[in-house]
Amino acid sequence: MTTPTGLLPLRPELAGEEPYGAPQLDVPVLLNVNENPYPPSDDVVATIAADVAEAARGLNRYPDRDALGLRGDLAAYLRTESGVALEPTQIWAANGSNEVMLQLLQAFGGPGRTVVSFAPTYSMYPEYARDTHTRWVAGRRNEDFTIDVDHATQVIEREQPSVILLTSPNNPTGTALPLDVVEAVLDAAACVRVPDAPDGAGAVVVVDEAYAEFRRRGTPSALGLLEAHPNLAVSRTMSKAFGAAGLRLGYLAASERLVDALRVVRLPYHLSAITQAAARAALKHTDALMAQVGSLRAERDDLVVWLRAQGIEVADTDANFVLFGRFDDRRAVWQGLLDRGVLIREVGPPGWLRVSVGTPVETARFKDALSDVLLALPAAQPTQKEA
Amino acid sequence: MTTPTGLLPLRPELAGEEPYGAPQLDVPVLLNVNENPYPPSDDVVATIAADVAEAARGLNRYPDRDALGLRGDLAAYLRTESGVALEPTQIWAANGSNEVMLQLLQAFGGPGRTVVSFAPTYSMYPEYARDTHTRWVAGRRNEDFTIDVDHATQVIEREQPSVILLTSPNNPTGTALPLDVVEAVLDAAACVRVPDAPDGAGAVVVVDEAYAEFRRRGTPSALGLLEAHPNLAVSRTMSKAFGAAGLRLGYLAASERLVDALRVVRLPYHLSAITQAAARAALKHTDALMAQVGSLRAERDDLVVWLRAQGIEVADTDANFVLFGRFDDRRAVWQGLLDRGVLIREVGPPGWLRVSVGTPVETARFKDALSDVLLALPAAQPTQKEA
Repeated sequence: MTTPTGLLPLRPELAGEEPYGAPQLDVPVLLNVNENPYPPSDDVVATIAADVAEAARGLNRYPDRDALGLRGDLAAYLRTESGVALEPTQIWAANGSNEVMLQLLQAFGGPGRTVVSFAPTYSMYPEYARDTHTRWVAGRRNEDFTIDVDHATQVIEREQPSVILLTSPNNPTGTALPLDVVEAVLDAAACVRVPDAPDGAGAVVVVDEAYAEFRRRGTPSALGLLEAHPNLAVSRTMSKAFGAAGLRLGYLAASERLVDALRVVRLPYHLSAITQAAARAALKHTDALMAQVGSLRAERDDLVVWLRAQGIEVADTDANFVLFGRFDDRRAVWQGLLDRGVLIREVGPPGWLRVSVGTPVETARFKDALSDVLLALPAAQPTQKEA
Repeated sequence: MTTPTGLLPLRPELAGEEPYGAPQLDVPVLLNVNENPYPPSDDVVATIAADVAEAARGLNRYPDRDALGLRGDLAAYLRTESGVALEPTQIWAANGSNEVMLQLLQAFGGPGRTVVSFAPTYSMYPEYARDTHTRWVAGRRNEDFTIDVDHATQVIEREQPSVILLTSPNNPTGTALPLDVVEAVLDAAACVRVPDAPDGAGAVVVVDEAYAEFRRRGTPSALGLLEAHPNLAVSRTMSKAFGAAGLRLGYLAASERLVDALRVVRLPYHLSAITQAAARAALKHTDALMAQVGSLRAERDDLVVWLRAQGIEVADTDANFVLFGRFDDRRAVWQGLLDRGVLIREVGPPGWLRVSVGTPVETARFKDALSDVLLALPAAQPTQKEA
């Protein structure tokens, strides 16, 4: 018998990698992962408990593999939220929008193919690419974090990606994309020649709208482009607007043909009966939850005004978080806030920090702590903007 | 603007593929997907509802990414069930054991690598391989569905796989593996040279024990081999013995080092707070659920005796299902049963059919229907075994 060596045949690209995730620290004010600060109301909890109990009575059976009831409820919700009418078969749901993204790259990415996005953007995207053996290419965003159409088109023409990943509002910058940018990318995507794909297939364009419900009045959703673009997918999540990060329910809207492609790569019964029931329960409370989103938007706008009044630079934001800076030593500011009981996220381009929008009490704690840090740490003063 | 063609850049190996899954039909007696026929008791439902309600109060926050509480409960359960002491950090949990399997192949399989199993076996395995771009090679089982050690060793030496997938009890045959077979495979695995892996890493051996709780007295679990084999993983599920197919909770036990490799490829927050709470709630009722497993085992053994008394061939089974045959026209038998309100599964090698163990009432319905079919359909008579 051979003596076990304790070595494992881990894939080389994973060697030395750490599991993804922000530090989870026990701190009074948690403004680090863009959670909704409001716990579900007693009403929501009661509906979830009752509906989950009902689902639990049949728990010995496998769940509905296609989750059509839930997908119908999500279609109805999107119609209310964005005014776009979609069939239940145009919706796909999974355990968090990260599972949706993984499935998209399993179906349309993979070895020999490329996914393009525009940085700075969500730091999980390269991991989806790595885990599906898809080549990752990041184009760049402008100084103000918008996307330049000419640059985007050039990157797409040069890289010939099978998937193009846009994010609106973008994480961690908060930047929403005008529809003409999305449309220009869709046009460029239609001309791509994807290896091993049928002639004329073009690339799939994904718009990650995880934070879309927080967009400012007048900012559009890409959902309105779906009817004309069968290669477009718009992803959403219940983690943020619905205050249900613990539920892990992400979804997307697309053509039925695109959804059917995801059904081929999804693990059978990927969405539990409990998850389906709890998500549908939360959706019954859409009106109350959307009112809460409205107050978070107002809180966000107030925070932006306050930060700018302190001489701090703030990226325009349509999300439930604010990217602010720039600091020569952002780590010192982050640590100073943490020392004062406020956890935010050290993420994004050098010099910037990201804070999630909390309750009014949490925001006040953040403002006090930041004022205090800026007084205490001369080195942490924001860099003067160039004229 | 280019006119959208409606074509998508689907990966070529997925073109024309159908989503995996047994037909879900509305039939009185469902014995097709090896579910536990007993719905959760009122006690179990009440605990799940209460614990999920508690979890829902914090649903706006992301779940515990590492699910250490649940993993501790699962370790305690395995100690009770199999007498093997494991640390919580030696357990990994995901949304169904199919997500566990996908993660195993993401970490240790992939392009340029091979996974070996022994057919006939679980029909999802080739899909995990396809979805991770791992080459799939199936060795063969003997006529009685056992695995020949010399053949297994030869296949492993020839194919140099990074992952070897054993199944005990096997699906759809019910065949358990003696530990000396698993040990021989572990020895062969240790000598494999995996491309792009450290020298001496060898292959990972996975024993899929989804149905292990139904094993007959004296049949061992591979859990006992873990201490000596850091490249062994034993996977389990709450779908079957715990009567919780709708919960989607699969898990594995392995060395901490192997579990840590899965943590790198898991999607962050893959296991919802609701799933963690519901699984822990069900685990509080282990004693009652294990008593139910005992009665299902007895029911299974009675069914085997009855089938053999009808002159029908039956594979020895340690699972909650029975593979029986052989029929010249198994489709006619399957359809005849369905016409009589009993849904079983047309799966496995030609001529065989698989029936799940139901309640005593369901088993009686199955026996009556089968007797009726065999009388009505002369062509459906079981083939005489060769001497």
